[in-house]
Amino acid sequence: MKQVLLLVVYACAACGQVNYTRLLEAAREPRNWLTYNGGYASHHYSGLSQINAGNVKRLGIDWVFQARSLEKFETTPLVVDGVMYLTEAPNNVIALDPTNGRLFWKYEHKLPDVTYPCCGKVNRGVAILDGVIFHGTHDAKLLALDAKTGRKKWEVQVFDYKQGYSLTHAPLVLKDKVIVGVAGGELGIRGFIAAYDAKTGKELWRFKVIPEPGEPGNETWGGDSWKHGGGSIWVTGSYDPELNLTYWGTGNPGPDWNPTARPGDNLYTDSVVALDADTGKLKWHFQFTPHDGWDWDAVQVPVLADVTVRGRLRKTMLWANRNGFFYTLDRATGEFLSGKEFVKQTWASGLDDRGRPLKIPGKEPNRQGSQIWPGVQGGTNWYAPSFSPRTGLFYVTAWDDYHGTYFAWDQAYEQGKWFAGGGVKAPTPPTNREAILTRGKEHGYAAVRALDAATGKRVWDYPMRDMSESGLLTTASDLLFSGNREGHFFALDAKTGKLLWSKYLGGQVIASPITFSVNGKQYVSVAAGTSLFTFTLGQLAGN
Amino acid sequence: MKQVLLLVVYACAACGQVNYTRLLEAAREPRNWLTYNGGYASHHYSGLSQINAGNVKRLGIDWVFQARSLEKFETTPLVVDGVMYLTEAPNNVIALDPTNGRLFWKYEHKLPDVTYPCCGKVNRGVAILDGVIFHGTHDAKLLALDAKTGRKKWEVQVFDYKQGYSLTHAPLVLKDKVIVGVAGGELGIRGFIAAYDAKTGKELWRFKVIPEPGEPGNETWGGDSWKHGGGSIWVTGSYDPELNLTYWGTGNPGPDWNPTARPGDNLYTDSVVALDADTGKLKWHFQFTPHDGWDWDAVQVPVLADVTVRGRLRKTMLWANRNGFFYTLDRATGEFLSGKEFVKQTWASGLDDRGRPLKIPGKEPNRQGSQIWPGVQGGTNWYAPSFSPRTGLFYVTAWDDYHGTYFAWDQAYEQGKWFAGGGVKAPTPPTNREAILTRGKEHGYAAVRALDAATGKRVWDYPMRDMSESGLLTTASDLLFSGNREGHFFALDAKTGKLLWSKYLGGQVIASPITFSVNGKQYVSVAAGTSLFTFTLGQLAGN
Repeated sequence: MKQVLLLVVYACAACGQVNYTRLLEAAREPRNWLTYNGGYASHHYSGLSQINAGNVKRLGIDWVFQARSLEKFETTPLVVDGVMYLTEAPNNVIALDPTNGRLFWKYEHKLPDVTYPCCGKVNRGVAILDGVIFHGTHDAKLLALDAKTGRKKWEVQVFDYKQGYSLTHAPLVLKDKVIVGVAGGELGIRGFIAAYDAKTGKELWRFKVIPEPGEPGNETWGGDSWKHGGGSIWVTGSYDPELNLTYWGTGNPGPDWNPTARPGDNLYTDSVVALDADTGKLKWHFQFTPHDGWDWDAVQVPVLADVTVRGRLRKTMLWANRNGFFYTLDRATGEFLSGKEFVKQTWASGLDDRGRPLKIPGKEPNRQGSQIWPGVQGGTNWYAPSFSPRTGLFYVTAWDDYHGTYFAWDQAYEQGKWFAGGGVKAPTPPTNREAILTRGKEHGYAAVRALDAATGKRVWDYPMRDMSESGLLTTASDLLFSGNREGHFFALDAKTGKLLWSKYLGGQVIASPITFSVNGKQYVSVAAGTSLFTFTLGQLAGN
Repeated sequence: MKQVLLLVVYACAACGQVNYTRLLEAAREPRNWLTYNGGYASHHYSGLSQINAGNVKRLGIDWVFQARSLEKFETTPLVVDGVMYLTEAPNNVIALDPTNGRLFWKYEHKLPDVTYPCCGKVNRGVAILDGVIFHGTHDAKLLALDAKTGRKKWEVQVFDYKQGYSLTHAPLVLKDKVIVGVAGGELGIRGFIAAYDAKTGKELWRFKVIPEPGEPGNETWGGDSWKHGGGSIWVTGSYDPELNLTYWGTGNPGPDWNPTARPGDNLYTDSVVALDADTGKLKWHFQFTPHDGWDWDAVQVPVLADVTVRGRLRKTMLWANRNGFFYTLDRATGEFLSGKEFVKQTWASGLDDRGRPLKIPGKEPNRQGSQIWPGVQGGTNWYAPSFSPRTGLFYVTAWDDYHGTYFAWDQAYEQGKWFAGGGVKAPTPPTNREAILTRGKEHGYAAVRALDAATGKRVWDYPMRDMSESGLLTTASDLLFSGNREGHFFALDAKTGKLLWSKYLGGQVIASPITFSVNGKQYVSVAAGTSLFTFTLGQLAGN
């Protein structure tokens, strides 16, 4: 063997031919990772089990993809029939060989000089349907790319990006539709979710997160406050094909920290909305944080699982919210089944019978600063939780014992300008070892937390010294994979939370791990720092 | 074990206490990597042998350091008594734990907005002496940092950076001196090598690569051409303590491609100079490419080895030059012992008895373009070669069957401006798989090449499809480590060139690998892309 570089000829006759049926039955092909959230129910769970508690210590880095970007690397790849699709910030789409990292193609989207990202020119991934890759951009376009070549098939302008709109999440495809929402909650946008014809890019429906005058819900906005009400969409929703409902978490109201500027509940911000997948009509909604003053986007992944609650098997939705509470909802009706705080919180005395928080007066942001738990990053955030049908547990990356001091001030809206109406003094999560070492209690800590899906009761806890913005992955071998901000990637026993293995990757994990299998060999991939690392079981001695 | 982040308390009482005696005897402590070139003789050879041909297949990535820079990552770390020191472009110095990558300290040098790098704001490493780290910067400063804390002890301005001067290589320390040279060969500088007092930063001597009027050698520059004659220094030299000579390779004359603008041999460009280490006085010189028109810097690492040449053991210097010839010199006198082309070259019919090239007329750059072999990157370049005292072989990263078309034009010097007097049309080395696949002969190829040290005769060859800018490392277990531009890092059998192991790192290797040992465990480190990867032998199954 005289040449290190063994070139693989890229010849997949039916490249990326994932039809809707395959997406519906994604759990039947755990060798692939077909949607951002690992299937319509968004379990971030894989049926693969080759890597298990007995051999995970042999897990090693098989290959590395290095992004040419110093932006936060938030991508969750797809793997489809021997091709991995991922995004590189800001808006490049890459197809490569998931067994060795070699590039098949790269699509580079040219952005205008100025776009309006809230928090970095990040991107979280793509969707695939019938040989086409779908990707949202910072200039608020939805792109359709040929999965085999990366060539653009069509693009549509979802909204005028100059008004602060952008697309950062992976689209959701279902039936013949591509569904996306718009980011820009700190820029005075009015969020919406829209469906496009996957073949043509034609818009099919649009759901407005901020109802306009005359529409139900607009009455929850005092005065003209609805005009720049926020309610952004920046994490991919879920879908229940039997109910034909698609579920999306919505962002904070705007301006973030000055709720007195927008009297009322501010629907449908900080909510989950259940939309008819064919029409975009609202079937039900559940608002986690009415009249939010703390920037607690409900942009969590809606986890759909059938769970026995008080003796009755229910079609539930499991939701650990940025506001610090875990909720079990009936996903057919939106009925609140149970709720419980999963981290320290000091803003509500509890939830009422319908799940509405019982706010403690005087906790809202003000001129002097109001200190409450949790801090601005919330009890959790957008990082994907996981549900394992094997353990029946809901797993979440939690930030506990973590507070912030919230300030409010008056602010007028200006197009393209930051429109937050306040600020937060947070104990900055430390990024270097010395600071972490001396941090102590006042900065809080992150934990991977296993909750009883019906009650939110804690089953086990894996606290870390460092914070974590990593998503979670569970497998049929009862492993749980996650990472943290310092740059560790690790595997826990999903039944007990025991640490089984870890690897230092030198860059923060702000993404969700996935697993897949090619030619009978299981791989695990995760983005950390500016690289995507792919792991396999190492060789035995002598092999 | 409940916390992934295990913080190691950094408590080395005698941090970085490497005195001159230890540097002289660096080969006695192969657990460390004490100088950029792996000892004063610059063998890039390690006495470690735990990782060997029998187990190298188990080599896996142990930890990763990710640089916060998209610049070329050309660092070669030092490892000293449990601390690794490396540089991050442009001029940050980092100390970390070589067993897990955790940061001890980071020194960030603030550069002016405008500096004058020729080819990226790169940096290649540091030197250490008596608890102090030495580092050269793009604004042409030499810094001394406390090895334990990273705090600056002193800095000196080596030259006015606004005139195109910068420091990019790792300093060389010997006795009580720190020796550096200046880069800027494409910016009309006049190169020099200078020694500074390690304790105070006081300049002790300076050797001018471009002699001034009245100095020997100035007569090799027609007219005023000496004024911007180039002769930069950008790779760390070597040292023979018995002869008390320090050897440095010098860069191309300026303007690069218009030799008619500078009649004469243009001393001491494209040469190796042997300097008295105490005074900086020139003991001897050997010019590889007199009156160079092709940008063939002699910035290779001077490899010092005692080799039997024609039956007699000689103190030799081994040198595979960018001009395509391999030279064996007597390092005490500069006597030419033997020379032989090691890649295809078409500019000289050979070397005369004193090693001077017999140039073929009409090959120099001109208005129409002159096509010759090798191309502008040369038959090799600055990437460290290796010499193994076990095999007696000299190893080099060679670019073979590789050509360029060289153009010349008149150009006036302007301060801070590119001053090259021409250009080169090169078959751009391909960077993506498709191009590599279809490249064919016309682009040439890279190879790791093993040469007989006395004759330059090829002993074995490891050709690659991709190009390589990687340095080499050999070990006492007869392994040779190198990488390539596509992002592979690999191990060959140093005796036969057989490929034993490789790993895809996703970013080009433009650095030299090192090896070291901590607590009896051998590690190998190499920079690739924007990360430094450190490898160890993987665990056996069941461990």
